Amino acid sequence: MPTESEPPWQPPTIAPLDQALAASMRARIDGKAKPPGSLGRIEDLAVQLGMIAYPADPPGGKAVLLVFAADHGLTEEGVSQYPSAVTVAMVKTYLAGRASANAFAAASDVDIRVVDAGVAAELPVHRNLIDAKIRMGTGNAAREPAMSIRQAREALAKGCALAMAEIDAGADIVALGEMGIGNTASSALLVHRLVPAPLDDCIGAGAGQDDPGMARKRAAIAKAAARSNVSSPLDVLSEFGGLEIGMMAGAVLGTASRRRPVLIDGFISSAAALLAIRLCPAARDYCVFAHRSAEKGHDIVLAAFGAKPLLDLGLRLGEGTGALLAVPLVRAAARLLTDVADLSDVLAGNI
Amino acid sequence: MPTESEPPWQPPTIAPLDQALAASMRARIDGKAKPPGSLGRIEDLAVQLGMIAYPADPPGGKAVLLVFAADHGLTEEGVSQYPSAVTVAMVKTYLAGRASANAFAAASDVDIRVVDAGVAAELPVHRNLIDAKIRMGTGNAAREPAMSIRQAREALAKGCALAMAEIDAGADIVALGEMGIGNTASSALLVHRLVPAPLDDCIGAGAGQDDPGMARKRAAIAKAAARSNVSSPLDVLSEFGGLEIGMMAGAVLGTASRRRPVLIDGFISSAAALLAIRLCPAARDYCVFAHRSAEKGHDIVLAAFGAKPLLDLGLRLGEGTGALLAVPLVRAAARLLTDVADLSDVLAGNI
Repeated sequence: MPTESEPPWQPPTIAPLDQALAASMRARIDGKAKPPGSLGRIEDLAVQLGMIAYPADPPGGKAVLLVFAADHGLTEEGVSQYPSAVTVAMVKTYLAGRASANAFAAASDVDIRVVDAGVAAELPVHRNLIDAKIRMGTGNAAREPAMSIRQAREALAKGCALAMAEIDAGADIVALGEMGIGNTASSALLVHRLVPAPLDDCIGAGAGQDDPGMARKRAAIAKAAARSNVSSPLDVLSEFGGLEIGMMAGAVLGTASRRRPVLIDGFISSAAALLAIRLCPAARDYCVFAHRSAEKGHDIVLAAFGAKPLLDLGLRLGEGTGALLAVPLVRAAARLLTDVADLSDVLAGNI
Repeated sequence: MPTESEPPWQPPTIAPLDQALAASMRARIDGKAKPPGSLGRIEDLAVQLGMIAYPADPPGGKAVLLVFAADHGLTEEGVSQYPSAVTVAMVKTYLAGRASANAFAAASDVDIRVVDAGVAAELPVHRNLIDAKIRMGTGNAAREPAMSIRQAREALAKGCALAMAEIDAGADIVALGEMGIGNTASSALLVHRLVPAPLDDCIGAGAGQDDPGMARKRAAIAKAAARSNVSSPLDVLSEFGGLEIGMMAGAVLGTASRRRPVLIDGFISSAAALLAIRLCPAARDYCVFAHRSAEKGHDIVLAAFGAKPLLDLGLRLGEGTGALLAVPLVRAAARLLTDVADLSDVLAGNI
């Protein structure tokens, strides 16, 4: 957009993982005091973590969940059975420590930061709330762009900076979560354009739409899709939103650029990861897909990455709940590399 | 056995869960600040935990792993590619904090206790090693009973007492693990007799037998099976072992009698749970099946319980590694009940 005065945001530099390291990581794991291969997918995860941290070992396991919250103008079209006001009510619930994400974070010993990416309300000042608000919710994508190109860049840049700041403050693992009434609709549009995949295959029941609700949701999404035929990542984010999705994509890039694993939650987080990976393909190597969501469309994104998620528990809440449950698996994989003795030392009595 | 002087050990009293509570637990979870059903299997687990703790709420989440170690006389027949000496070497590795179980326990914030149920060696005195040795390994079940009926009762009684002692000292969750070269062979025999199921369907590659090794393993197990046609739980334990399996079964009973959840690891732990449940069917209600093992035969045990495990990560190590990865899921489910606000309060602005 020639009217913008700032230089365009450039994604950070992300080094692809050196795939030649995989064999030596695998050999190191095979030398541990256990039958080769007996830790299954935790071994695969350890290989990935070892390559991410190389030449260092994967660090401890301090983890942070960033929950990005924003509103969606598309809710005017009835895409969700919940009103937008639920977004701000849930933000207050996170800050009070009373949401599912807080419960799961406590269970997995993970810190939570709540990020206002674009909630359509003034939020209270709170020590755990990061004000990164870009605008008061997106525009109604069925009628107008969700945000300007400039705002899309701003979302990416802010998410990137926030993730980098967490890592610089000591986080070893970044987990992503979101809250935004209507955001499965935006995610469906992103997945449709960026995989690409047939639109209807990308539309699920979200928080639990009934049949008339699904008809409204499909109609609104189809109307938005018909309004614009863009397919490049930045354009798709600008046209269809959401602010929290753009910021999560930025957080994927920021985490990868700092060489840390980023835990991707469910459908919406995966749509954000897709956006990030379309901007910087090397970011894929740093993503850990935490769980298979029950939301229709998630499998399409996972297939686009060739990703098999760690958990399959029928979750479809978002908020980062699935990512939080997978944090201990990431920690275990890291410790397999760093803590477990070699079989040769065990058999030689050197332990 | 009429030569025994002690009265026979009686399993502890275990109250079956009141299934009438399930609907009210479900309603309580449906009232939480999230779309109904959106936490999938974590909600099912929360219902189980709520029923176990009723009328109290599920307690915090202090978890302990009991790793039961013992040797198997059946290894004389070549059922494992590892020598029995590996059992004692691995016990020393646990005590040094350098095994996979230690790494995973640290990742999940779980305490470990190592129990000598019958390792065929004198073990060092160590603050984390519990001496519950019944004998120096089992007899070779291909030629003689693995242990006497009295020793089988002693294993059950000691395991039961150990689990109760952990709970009385503050544990909210008991996880089970084991180490014993040759113990997939004993487990195959137990599962064969107690499900019952065709013997060959219960025999897997264990720590990783090759084809000639599998032939030796199958022959030794068939020889043991042909030696005795017993089918009652105590007789089966006595004939086929092992000491660690009997003690784990006792720990299942002890945990259930204290109304706490017991996390079952893989094939061997599930064989122990089967033994416990055949002794006291109500114990089933307190079992949480942590993961689907890659060991052949595990699915047969799981099907006998109608159990669908939480994780499916291709693990086949034992040591409690799968149970450890599931501990945070149990904690999350408990906190869903206790920590998460009701939707009505969130919408009314009462948070």
